[in-house]
Amino acid sequence: MMKLPRRLSRSQLFEQIVCKKVGHVGHPLWSHPFSSRVGFPDSRQNFTHTVTKNASDRVYAAYNVYKGKAGLSMKPCLPTFTKLESGSLVIDRRGSVMLSFFPAIGERKYDWTKKQLFALSPTEVGTLISLGPRDSCEFFHDPGMLSSTAGQVRKSLTIKAHADGNGYFISLNVVNNSQNTKDFLSVPFTAGEFSVMKTACSFALPHILGWDRLTQPNPGMGKDFQPNKVDREALSLEWER
Amino acid sequence: MMKLPRRLSRSQLFEQIVCKKVGHVGHPLWSHPFSSRVGFPDSRQNFTHTVTKNASDRVYAAYNVYKGKAGLSMKPCLPTFTKLESGSLVIDRRGSVMLSFFPAIGERKYDWTKKQLFALSPTEVGTLISLGPRDSCEFFHDPGMLSSTAGQVRKSLTIKAHADGNGYFISLNVVNNSQNTKDFLSVPFTAGEFSVMKTACSFALPHILGWDRLTQPNPGMGKDFQPNKVDREALSLEWER
Amino acid sequence: MMKLPRRLSRSQLFEQIVCKKVGHVGHPLWSHPFSSRVGFPDSRQNFTHTVTKNASDRVYAAYNVYKGKAGLSMKPCLPTFTKLESGSLVIDRRGSVMLSFFPAIGERKYDWTKKQLFALSPTEVGTLISLGPRDSCEFFHDPGMLSSTAGQVRKSLTIKAHADGNGYFISLNVVNNSQNTKDFLSVPFTAGEFSVMKTACSFALPHILGWDRLTQPNPGMGKDFQPNKVDREALSLEWER
Amino acid sequence: MMKLPRRLSRSQLFEQIVCKKVGHVGHPLWSHPFSSRVGFPDSRQNFTHTVTKNASDRVYAAYNVYKGKAGLSMKPCLPTFTKLESGSLVIDRRGSVMLSFFPAIGERKYDWTKKQLFALSPTEVGTLISLGPRDSCEFFHDPGMLSSTAGQVRKSLTIKAHADGNGYFISLNVVNNSQNTKDFLSVPFTAGEFSVMKTACSFALPHILGWDRLTQPNPGMGKDFQPNKVDREALSLEWER
Repeated sequence: MMKLPRRLSRSQLFEQIVCKKVGHVGHPLWSHPFSSRVGFPDSRQNFTHTVTKNASDRVYAAYNVYKGKAGLSMKPCLPTFTKLESGSLVIDRRGSVMLSFFPAIGERKYDWTKKQLFALSPTEVGTLISLGPRDSCEFFHDPGMLSSTAGQVRKSLTIKAHADGNGYFISLNVVNNSQNTKDFLSVPFTAGEFSVMKTACSFALPHILGWDRLTQPNPGMGKDFQPNKVDREALSLEWER
Repeated sequence: MMKLPRRLSRSQLFEQIVCKKVGHVGHPLWSHPFSSRVGFPDSRQNFTHTVTKNASDRVYAAYNVYKGKAGLSMKPCLPTFTKLESGSLVIDRRGSVMLSFFPAIGERKYDWTKKQLFALSPTEVGTLISLGPRDSCEFFHDPGMLSSTAGQVRKSLTIKAHADGNGYFISLNVVNNSQNTKDFLSVPFTAGEFSVMKTACSFALPHILGWDRLTQPNPGMGKDFQPNKVDREALSLEWER
Repeated sequence: MMKLPRRLSRSQLFEQIVCKKVGHVGHPLWSHPFSSRVGFPDSRQNFTHTVTKNASDRVYAAYNVYKGKAGLSMKPCLPTFTKLESGSLVIDRRGSVMLSFFPAIGERKYDWTKKQLFALSPTEVGTLISLGPRDSCEFFHDPGMLSSTAGQVRKSLTIKAHADGNGYFISLNVVNNSQNTKDFLSVPFTAGEFSVMKTACSFALPHILGWDRLTQPNPGMGKDFQPNKVDREALSLEWER
Repeated sequence: MMKLPRRLSRSQLFEQIVCKKVGHVGHPLWSHPFSSRVGFPDSRQNFTHTVTKNASDRVYAAYNVYKGKAGLSMKPCLPTFTKLESGSLVIDRRGSVMLSFFPAIGERKYDWTKKQLFALSPTEVGTLISLGPRDSCEFFHDPGMLSSTAGQVRKSLTIKAHADGNGYFISLNVVNNSQNTKDFLSVPFTAGEFSVMKTACSFALPHILGWDRLTQPNPGMGKDFQPNKVDREALSLEWER
């Protein structure tokens, strides 16, 4: 069992603050949990509130694994971007791979209303896709972390290799102290199913980081984009600082 | 020889029902083999019968391996989507990697009319691409499963590593009880040819899952798409349930 | 040293015929080296001579490795397609990864006029990307194979791991009997350079197979393309044969 | 510790010349550090000074790892292209993966003004993504190399595996002799964070090489592009030299 080392916990914390606050504040950049002397490029200029909508909100194509006691559905959630007045796009909310666990309530019947969610961060996706056939890992999320509801809901996701190295158990444990409930949902994955998960997550990772936007010749940000203007500043980045 | 464990057989069954019924019914969602209390998002609203057509129906670019006794041709088959009235796309038929085996009938002559097909599901593709140089696997398909023709045709695909770890035999066995025929088609793959197959299948896997649609900033579903509306619901998925 | 087994040589032969003849004949499909009872889908209908042009003919972005005695430049060459009257695209000439070797003629000076070419087929690319840190392989090409010039020019490409597993020698040997010349060009690759080559070739492989065209929702073949027509035939491929 | 072998140092040198000079000269091709008898295709024709702008200049989506003493931010920088009068695109400046190190100045506070940059070349990216869990490597950059400021600033990047194989230290050492300063910034990476870095860099590598442009059916270079003209020359490249 490979627990994530302590030094990761703080960045996990930050990630959750960002995800949580975005839903409540109008100016996403203000929720950035770091202070710095100079700060973010362009951060002193005004920006519009435009947040880009993603295909993942409109297309239903999750990869589903249905087993006897529970099922697991997964799909990528793209990051959202804020468009500055300059026309630049700034990442607003990190993307994730969303896991939905749902219990079986009979033969081939599943209760979708009792689903439990777990959003894998990019680093957790990185951990998952680097697992060898006998490795395991565990991730902890507290949706209320750093807020007044901290500790009320605790989620832990465990990916545990079978002893024979030929598959995994993927299990979600949710303890809700305010509702006094405990949920445990576990789905056995064959080696083939886990291979699909790893391959699909490897494909999704650059997209949930937003790097697919960085590697397009044209960012598709409207017709005011000037493809022919030389950005001399960028050319000498490493060398002239 | 790594046989797929029993627990996979049921999901294979479901997959085949879906594939089979789509050809016969007008409302693809009705053929969904699971019942649930709440069911699929948007499933209670009306939907149009529009199914998206794929490039794979119009472009011929299979990867072909021709050997002495038989040949094997493979290509990805994309999933089809149903467009709901809301404009959302719901996956309708899972994609696959279609294998076509055809016998040799002379030197460099192959009889395409005697081809036998085997559609690898996403999970079977996942199994294939995770095979090590000495691993093997076997998949079973019954095109008539759960219908009145169950058991009439039985197909099994075997991928078996050479003893020296330097290649594989890919073999299809088809027993047709109603026509009283047996076909056995086997194609030896070099390590290089299998590497092409694995790399091409890894590339294809996110596409046959439909995840390429999930990772596009714009799903390309027409001009009624509103890229700037914030989907507040999605932002707080894990945190506010 | 892993020589490609005998059974590959025939398909290599076919590949070269196709590549060679395309330059000479007007009807590319006629140069298809296989005969079959039923043949290629749509092959009996008329087809236009339109062959799609590729970006690789207009963009110069080779990966170059310059060493003391020679340099090596590589880039993908996309397949070409023939557009049938039905609007379908049929692959015409297989893609490849083109290697160009050129000798050094002084310090940091290379003679591009003496370059020697070697076009890696998809299967050869597959072999290359599956090489472990101590593996080696060798490929043979005869540009005149099956023609009156067979045997006049013989090319062999060798990829040979360093004894310490930390790099490779990539060497091209060209014997031209008609011109009575022998060329030997060898370029040492560090592990990092070979990693670039493997990663870039893995990226290129689906493209030189033409599978990128198969995985696009819209093949971009003009406005006569009907995205909403259901292809019932494709839906039941495996099941109704 | 795997130091890059000597034979790489010269090509690293060239790379830096190209990067450096582009900022100062009007004709990027003139800064090409190689001479050859025939030279670059199209090099004798006139060319425009148009350099394509990249999305990476307008989209902010770096992958950031924040730790106690320093943080590390990474993002791909696409190559720039020069458009010739013929309409062809010639790579002008190689792409890179830009690493930005910045020191912590308090709890969760980082001083972005003291950031130090290190631009990983394609070959350095190749080295990074081929590192095993116990491998290490070191890269040296001299921004002033071959100029009058050679040796004034020396940068070395070290990636060093933890002894237990479960993560890495990524450290940048910058010695500036003219300012008489020394900076050392080190960021511990968990296995999961390094897996993100490797996956994201593998995704980025074909793009920083410019190979994504080579694998598009249409390079998107304007409407004067003729997709139907057969390039006979390319068809017979290997065979007719």
